[in-house]
Amino acid sequence: MMAGTLFGLGVGPGDPELLTLKALNRLRAAPVVAFFAARERKGNAFTIIEGHLEPSQQLLRLQYPVTREKLPDGEDYETLLAGFYDRAAADIAGHLDAGRDVAVVCEGDPLFYGSYMYIHDRLAHRYPTEVVPGVSSIFASAAVLGAPLVYRNQSLSILSGTLAPEDLREKLARADAAAIMKLGGGNLAKVRACLEDLGLLDRALYVERATMAAERILPLRDVEAQSSPYFSIILVPGRKWLS
Amino acid sequence: MMAGTLFGLGVGPGDPELLTLKALNRLRAAPVVAFFAARERKGNAFTIIEGHLEPSQQLLRLQYPVTREKLPDGEDYETLLAGFYDRAAADIAGHLDAGRDVAVVCEGDPLFYGSYMYIHDRLAHRYPTEVVPGVSSIFASAAVLGAPLVYRNQSLSILSGTLAPEDLREKLARADAAAIMKLGGGNLAKVRACLEDLGLLDRALYVERATMAAERILPLRDVEAQSSPYFSIILVPGRKWLS
Repeated sequence: MMAGTLFGLGVGPGDPELLTLKALNRLRAAPVVAFFAARERKGNAFTIIEGHLEPSQQLLRLQYPVTREKLPDGEDYETLLAGFYDRAAADIAGHLDAGRDVAVVCEGDPLFYGSYMYIHDRLAHRYPTEVVPGVSSIFASAAVLGAPLVYRNQSLSILSGTLAPEDLREKLARADAAAIMKLGGGNLAKVRACLEDLGLLDRALYVERATMAAERILPLRDVEAQSSPYFSIILVPGRKWLS
Repeated sequence: MMAGTLFGLGVGPGDPELLTLKALNRLRAAPVVAFFAARERKGNAFTIIEGHLEPSQQLLRLQYPVTREKLPDGEDYETLLAGFYDRAAADIAGHLDAGRDVAVVCEGDPLFYGSYMYIHDRLAHRYPTEVVPGVSSIFASAAVLGAPLVYRNQSLSILSGTLAPEDLREKLARADAAAIMKLGGGNLAKVRACLEDLGLLDRALYVERATMAAERILPLRDVEAQSSPYFSIILVPGRKWLS
């Protein structure tokens, strides 16, 4: 029997219209659709594509064992997640071995901080695999903010809000332009303080859940730090050229 | 009379199937479709979308006054380009003033190194404007290379191959992961030498025109430096986590 094909499908930042024609075609043709979700959540990728599903398609829900940073006593985050991805890959491989294609849907782009990467690392060398790139939340944020990101030969630094303050400060000081992700869990206050130290606060723009139904744009100074969700982004656009 | 709306439409990296549903819907509804092209070229964005055009749609070709770095004697690149974008913006504004929507199509994402940015900076404060983000060539490159880009809290540095060697070396040395663009015009040899100095050559991946018909993947060591086109990218993926 011919093995099925593994598809890693980027489904974009949130607005279902930001799905590509290719992702939609691959999604519709897949007998099995896999998606990641936290406990008691539908999952963002699933929410984006559910309107396109047919009753004949089999769903494979891959539920994270932990939500964010809260660990069961005595458990190690890395071991727990590695075991989870091993089991998820085995479930997907079961379908592939039976000759069924599996489409793993991923918010944004599949190879850019996506859970699909851990499936890809486990299975892509064993099965036919195709990755369909998607629109990243960074570009969705720039679009809804109407903010050109980088001009001409400027560099763009994409940083995680989980970095230590001194790391963050050094990287921001050297950046022509920056996008800072992962601002949940109290990271926003730290990032904002770094931007203020560097005199970058007036250039920085903030958006929550860009292109999703709950999108919210407000001045970075006005964000209540503890309320900043995981899906928020700060952009520091490059200085304008030729304007 | 109500002014028309300016649309900046990201049409993705090259494969026409990587257009989003939203870009396609906006494109089809636009009475005027504007695109940038070099002299005697169709333009990459136009090539991506031409199959979707109707005869009733008016085309507005915006032709660059210079190709790359070759300047007419006595001309200054910056002044020449600023004048070109001023005239392009005026042409577009003429349609908007007459109540006609104008869709400016852009390869990749419109606000990420795109010519649309210079139109946006000139017109977005004067007319209703909507930007539709697109799939960037960086993510298209990662997809066709099958290379997860950044894990967990790693940073991604997006760099221009036009940087001076010492700049490039410093930025690459500090990067968890990198994508290097603009490798035409002899920049490839410089970038490759930097990667070799830093011991990164074995981690680096190379692709030309990812997802376009002329896509080509080959080992970076084997690329003839002078043959590297503008639309080539080097990726240095982050070190694997949980694999």
